[in-house]
Amino acid sequence: MRIAIDAMGGDHAPQAQVEGALAAAKEWPDTEILLVGRPDAIEPLLAQGKPSNVKIVPALELIESDDEPVRAVRRKSDSSMVVAGRMVKEGEADAMISSGNTGALMAVGLLVVGRLKGIERPGLAPVLPTLDDIGVLALDLGANMDAKPEHLLQYALMGTLYREKVHGMKKPRVGLLNVGTEAAKGNELTKAAFELLEPAPIHFVGNVEARDVLERNCDVLVCDGFAGNILLKAMEGAAGTIFKVLKEEFTANWKTKIAAALMMPGLRRVRKKMDYTEHGGAPLLGVNGLVIKGHGSSDAVAVKNAIRQARIAIGNGLIPALADEFGGK
Amino acid sequence: MRIAIDAMGGDHAPQAQVEGALAAAKEWPDTEILLVGRPDAIEPLLAQGKPSNVKIVPALELIESDDEPVRAVRRKSDSSMVVAGRMVKEGEADAMISSGNTGALMAVGLLVVGRLKGIERPGLAPVLPTLDDIGVLALDLGANMDAKPEHLLQYALMGTLYREKVHGMKKPRVGLLNVGTEAAKGNELTKAAFELLEPAPIHFVGNVEARDVLERNCDVLVCDGFAGNILLKAMEGAAGTIFKVLKEEFTANWKTKIAAALMMPGLRRVRKKMDYTEHGGAPLLGVNGLVIKGHGSSDAVAVKNAIRQARIAIGNGLIPALADEFGGK
Repeated sequence: MRIAIDAMGGDHAPQAQVEGALAAAKEWPDTEILLVGRPDAIEPLLAQGKPSNVKIVPALELIESDDEPVRAVRRKSDSSMVVAGRMVKEGEADAMISSGNTGALMAVGLLVVGRLKGIERPGLAPVLPTLDDIGVLALDLGANMDAKPEHLLQYALMGTLYREKVHGMKKPRVGLLNVGTEAAKGNELTKAAFELLEPAPIHFVGNVEARDVLERNCDVLVCDGFAGNILLKAMEGAAGTIFKVLKEEFTANWKTKIAAALMMPGLRRVRKKMDYTEHGGAPLLGVNGLVIKGHGSSDAVAVKNAIRQARIAIGNGLIPALADEFGGK
Repeated sequence: MRIAIDAMGGDHAPQAQVEGALAAAKEWPDTEILLVGRPDAIEPLLAQGKPSNVKIVPALELIESDDEPVRAVRRKSDSSMVVAGRMVKEGEADAMISSGNTGALMAVGLLVVGRLKGIERPGLAPVLPTLDDIGVLALDLGANMDAKPEHLLQYALMGTLYREKVHGMKKPRVGLLNVGTEAAKGNELTKAAFELLEPAPIHFVGNVEARDVLERNCDVLVCDGFAGNILLKAMEGAAGTIFKVLKEEFTANWKTKIAAALMMPGLRRVRKKMDYTEHGGAPLLGVNGLVIKGHGSSDAVAVKNAIRQARIAIGNGLIPALADEFGGK
């Protein structure tokens, strides 16, 4: 199988991307890794030698993190992200992974790779952290700001298939993000979506609340992109702030510094549990090919993990299964 | 001034409500406290003597926490919550405070007290905790699930007046809850609301993100009831879970138990900072009278604080000011 890496996208690009690719190429010799980007930036990082299953695909332009997504994708046709997307579209790669501009990657999914037949709106599906480390696959978390009930139904079906094919889950529980667990709760969107989800061929467990996500109240969390983004950032913000204040408290005086030393392993464990960058990349589900969004701050380990994730999805036929479900590729 | 207390609503009712009322009556002899509820439940709690500025107003029914709100308010006309609402409506009380069923209290606001002229949808406006302990007044957090852009504009105006009149703030900064800070971000609702907020006679600071609320990125946070509820519960859930896991880590072995003892004051401070029950009651803004929702778990101190808040709002003419702003009472 062939996996295209946008070598230029991400806070630590191209170093983290190249290092992660090299580690993956070594571990999985059957996988061809295509590093897409500027050769003059990538080649120096291959000074130790380039494994035979790593190739450089030249792409001279770069989509910046503050570029306006759709315009950037339309104009920068020789950017690493667009070139990687085109390789997926044309069957030259089985998957692409990018840690660059999220909006631009969604535009690449829509405009370059194209929608899967039968899907109205693709959804971005990261795994949110949970206490038991298994995580909740949540979608959509930002691709589709004004979702319709039918979109949420498609997210539930796609999320279920992803959990089954990539995470090996049987009958993943699907929850609808809402303001209360009773069936009648919510806004017009969630009330209508509830009616569609209940008879659907999924394991629907009803409405779930934002406060219980960390306890893994479901395996697939369905929501519109606006609410999902608020959820994610509120959890991230609360966790970040608490750890920041704890750090201040721990460095307040000699007593608390002793306490900090005693507690360090435990604190690290708690911090790690809350870190949503730990759970690999977020697939853009609903496009006609495998597109994975890595976290902007991805290091080499995260890049390698995203490649592992792509390998599993390809090996287990995720995209053909999705195409089957929604009416043929 | 006269303040009606729903003595039967809340997890610790009527004890916490009566104790809080007694403490308030003692501190503010100019204020008449009207304890609304079942005399046989309230009187035994006044065994130590009833101050002359405390009165019992009999109401024999009770709205339970799991009652369907609108039906309960319509059918239980002799419930403590409905009777307190009627007193506000008929000018027998200048404010009412209830820690009971939130949905029912919003129904009391709409159906018993009535909307303020010119207001389309009332909004529930709790203060969210911030690191600097000043808090962010957020509305709407659950009264109006399908807000229109005009509702968000009214929330911005009402929230600004509340901050000025009750919290003594000058030019409170109004932020629009969104998925990014750029003007073009968001869903149809926030994009249209942005256009209305920008020219409005408020100190609009633009879009704000969920992750920065704890850093007090604005003083009045405007959002629809659905997104606001997700925000609140995600923050609450993340904080609750982190403290739960920290507690487990702190009790893991003798070393961590020593650390816990050394850190206790600091941990309590952090926990308290994140506790959104610390910031008094949430006004239901947009009804034709002062209606304050206390947290369900309110203790006597919280009840007394809500009474303090009501006193300030009454003393500074909040409701007449709102009536003026939106077209006369």
